[in-house]
Amino acid sequence: VGRWIMELVGFPVEGSLCLLLSGGSAANLNALTAACHHAAERDGWNLRAEGLQSGRQRLVLYASEESHSSVQKCVEQLGIGTNNLREIQADAGFRMRPDALRQAIERDLKAGHLPFAIVACGGATNTGAIDPLDEIADIAAEFGIWLHVDGAFGAWAALDPSYAGEFKALARADSVTLNPHKWLQVPLDCGALLTQHPELHRAAFSLTPDYLVSGHSEAPWPCEYMFQLTYGNRALKVWAAIARLGRKGVAELVTRCNGLAKLLEARVRAMPDFEMLAPASLSVVNFRYRPAGRSLDGAAIDALNVRISNAVSESGESHLPTTRVHGKTSLRACFLHYENDESDVEHLVRLVSRLGSSLADQLESA
Amino acid sequence: VGRWIMELVGFPVEGSLCLLLSGGSAANLNALTAACHHAAERDGWNLRAEGLQSGRQRLVLYASEESHSSVQKCVEQLGIGTNNLREIQADAGFRMRPDALRQAIERDLKAGHLPFAIVACGGATNTGAIDPLDEIADIAAEFGIWLHVDGAFGAWAALDPSYAGEFKALARADSVTLNPHKWLQVPLDCGALLTQHPELHRAAFSLTPDYLVSGHSEAPWPCEYMFQLTYGNRALKVWAAIARLGRKGVAELVTRCNGLAKLLEARVRAMPDFEMLAPASLSVVNFRYRPAGRSLDGAAIDALNVRISNAVSESGESHLPTTRVHGKTSLRACFLHYENDESDVEHLVRLVSRLGSSLADQLESA
Repeated sequence: VGRWIMELVGFPVEGSLCLLLSGGSAANLNALTAACHHAAERDGWNLRAEGLQSGRQRLVLYASEESHSSVQKCVEQLGIGTNNLREIQADAGFRMRPDALRQAIERDLKAGHLPFAIVACGGATNTGAIDPLDEIADIAAEFGIWLHVDGAFGAWAALDPSYAGEFKALARADSVTLNPHKWLQVPLDCGALLTQHPELHRAAFSLTPDYLVSGHSEAPWPCEYMFQLTYGNRALKVWAAIARLGRKGVAELVTRCNGLAKLLEARVRAMPDFEMLAPASLSVVNFRYRPAGRSLDGAAIDALNVRISNAVSESGESHLPTTRVHGKTSLRACFLHYENDESDVEHLVRLVSRLGSSLADQLESA
Repeated sequence: VGRWIMELVGFPVEGSLCLLLSGGSAANLNALTAACHHAAERDGWNLRAEGLQSGRQRLVLYASEESHSSVQKCVEQLGIGTNNLREIQADAGFRMRPDALRQAIERDLKAGHLPFAIVACGGATNTGAIDPLDEIADIAAEFGIWLHVDGAFGAWAALDPSYAGEFKALARADSVTLNPHKWLQVPLDCGALLTQHPELHRAAFSLTPDYLVSGHSEAPWPCEYMFQLTYGNRALKVWAAIARLGRKGVAELVTRCNGLAKLLEARVRAMPDFEMLAPASLSVVNFRYRPAGRSLDGAAIDALNVRISNAVSESGESHLPTTRVHGKTSLRACFLHYENDESDVEHLVRLVSRLGSSLADQLESA
């Protein structure tokens, strides 16, 4: 199953390993643990023994300001500290700026710090934005820094011809997070970590007490490569999903969902009372209801869209959570379900329009 | 379900929280994360922001040399470093020595370090030994150190009248690990963390990005109290197990299993070719085959018992892994299954005796 996942997204198979963990957070943590242990080892010290309490060089991590909250959680869990997480500025398209990344690394090297990993977004959660992976991989290679791509939701889109080019550099990543429990519809929990350095994960995690020595076989034993010891069978359900869909089926699924996002974007742009807040990327669309010709200020429009989101949930017809984009409250649509089709887009536009109009009336008369 | 678990083992319910995590390792990690964040906060600094890289006081953890390997993994994952894990000597019964614990704490305080937690075993994996929880709780209270009890497998035995006294001090622990996926027969994965300080776990973990703000209710949201964000439903299967068994059923299950261990101990002591390597504690029995009147040295007896363990597995009739006890290879029996009864004990004794005799013949003639 690991081989299948790697083949689907174009990750090098030879010498690589796929671990099935409890989710994207665990996959990110696993990768970053291996990365910082490796950086310490190259610097001549043993992180497992010394920890971060020996006054060594300061380990520093780089991630886009648009990266997933789990990256910050990883930095905290590892004892790195958020003061040592460099949140790299994103461009107008919410993509990490390579020039800003380079500057941050150079600044840290000058200060005597130890950059240990770059986390690039292969589909940011908030906007679906894909960081410029190839340019970032160049920088990682130049400075010898571990490149981890958080493609928890998005990296399956390597199979969509519209996005294949942007994901080609997945093959240059040291490790990639990719969740079968998202786009692949596999039941929770299931997060995949693809790594080109199984031996470095083993070096960071392997610990075999006396009562576990017997009974192991030649195949890699997952608990030697991860934090957790006992784990449920996650491979079977992933196997079933991929065996059922095949490469063609997965490709059709992600391509269709991404197409629905483009369709929704076009419909939103055509509606006078709707506003796009970010370019549609992958299957994510950030938009809001902003009725023309009404006397509503920014705060009122924010409040209106929160009410619309709640009303959509209460209707039971869709789920349309809010988020913040450029400081504005946004409705965030994300197409992941295998049954999503064009009628859902039409339905959503009508639903938001109807609820928005009625809630705006209430808000204005209040 | 959390309330039920706490009530069953005598953990204070009022103001406490039960989290269902992916296993014992995750539960231990969660508790120790909260403990070290709390210690840092009391010391006047913010561990989430600073990490362990600011040259502050050195955080130090105490655990029995018999503690589970996951404790070391936690120390590594948190960036504490195994150099700052004090492995406290155990007594002849494999129980942490309170005098040695006190000495270690005093030594660290004198050196200016910051003790942040004591991990006591509520049933060591290797031998089933229960640390003297009450005496350890006294020391934790005296020095103001977080007491975590790792009762992943054993703490259910608070319901066995033979062990209830030893587990009474669970009520004095700041946090307890207790796995429904072990004795309670709940399918993987499921590890419970009981804590008297939900607010400290929230302070260590809560992080709510914009795209997750909406939709939460008044009930505690588990991802604000733990590392993981998305999680499967673990409560239903635990509910089903406890609802089916009831307090009486769980008590009967653990009491019976512990009784089988005592029975096996008695049978082993009565067999001339068998040797006990540790006192039976909870449902764990460490013993080995040591044929009388044969010319086998220590290494040969070790090798013989590894072969016996493998032969038992191959027979398909039982699972009897090896471990090491006092430097000797041991066969380790552990009764956890609801169908285990006295006939299993008799069968195991006969099986080991027969395989041991035949393998000893082979070994001697080789």
